[in-house]
Amino acid sequence: MSMYGHNGRVTTQPALAPTEADVCCPSLTVSPLSLDDAQDFARILKSVADPTRLRLVSLIAAHEQQEACVCDLTDPVGLGQPTVSHHLKILVDAGVLRREKRGVWSYYSLEAAVLNRLSEFLAPN
Amino acid sequence: MSMYGHNGRVTTQPALAPTEADVCCPSLTVSPLSLDDAQDFARILKSVADPTRLRLVSLIAAHEQQEACVCDLTDPVGLGQPTVSHHLKILVDAGVLRREKRGVWSYYSLEAAVLNRLSEFLAPN
Repeated sequence: MSMYGHNGRVTTQPALAPTEADVCCPSLTVSPLSLDDAQDFARILKSVADPTRLRLVSLIAAHEQQEACVCDLTDPVGLGQPTVSHHLKILVDAGVLRREKRGVWSYYSLEAAVLNRLSEFLAPN
Repeated sequence: MSMYGHNGRVTTQPALAPTEADVCCPSLTVSPLSLDDAQDFARILKSVADPTRLRLVSLIAAHEQQEACVCDLTDPVGLGQPTVSHHLKILVDAGVLRREKRGVWSYYSLEAAVLNRLSEFLAPN
């Protein structure tokens, strides 16, 4: 995910002379966002900007050992397995959830570092 | 905005026996979200889940006195006034920006409390 490694950008735009903090952790209210950073964060925010996906994340977080399979999630959200799997894929693709296949099921857990990064990004200066 | 006043929900669903903390501040990873809370937060997240709107918020935050009019914002984002006004209206409607009319211009500033609430909501438990 490019928000975790901006070496390419630093190399190609040396005139910006970003500090270590800029490169690591852009913040919404500290300085004007670059288009790259705005696109990175918009993509992650889009993945959670949906009531069903927010509920899926909160159900996984509240589940035993903070992980769950699709079979645990369909009933609580009242949706079929294909729909739930579709929402979970969007969250995995955005980096908000991790997917691990064990036996016949895939288990989903939180990528706490990504949620933490999003939280810090939005916190007002 | 309903996330700031859940008295109706408390009255109509006494069996949930929410604590003061639950009523005030639902959190994504503390307990399963209600549909109402998920819809509230999804609506606010949608307003910022767009690269142009993220850049507008960051430009306003970085502007003198943390407020700006449309005339300050069109050049930095490279878009016309109607498009920028449309994006700003979405952010005002979601509660992320405040709009104040002075003379012929409207001035936009951050609603820091809403960004703070969003940041706290997403922070992993």
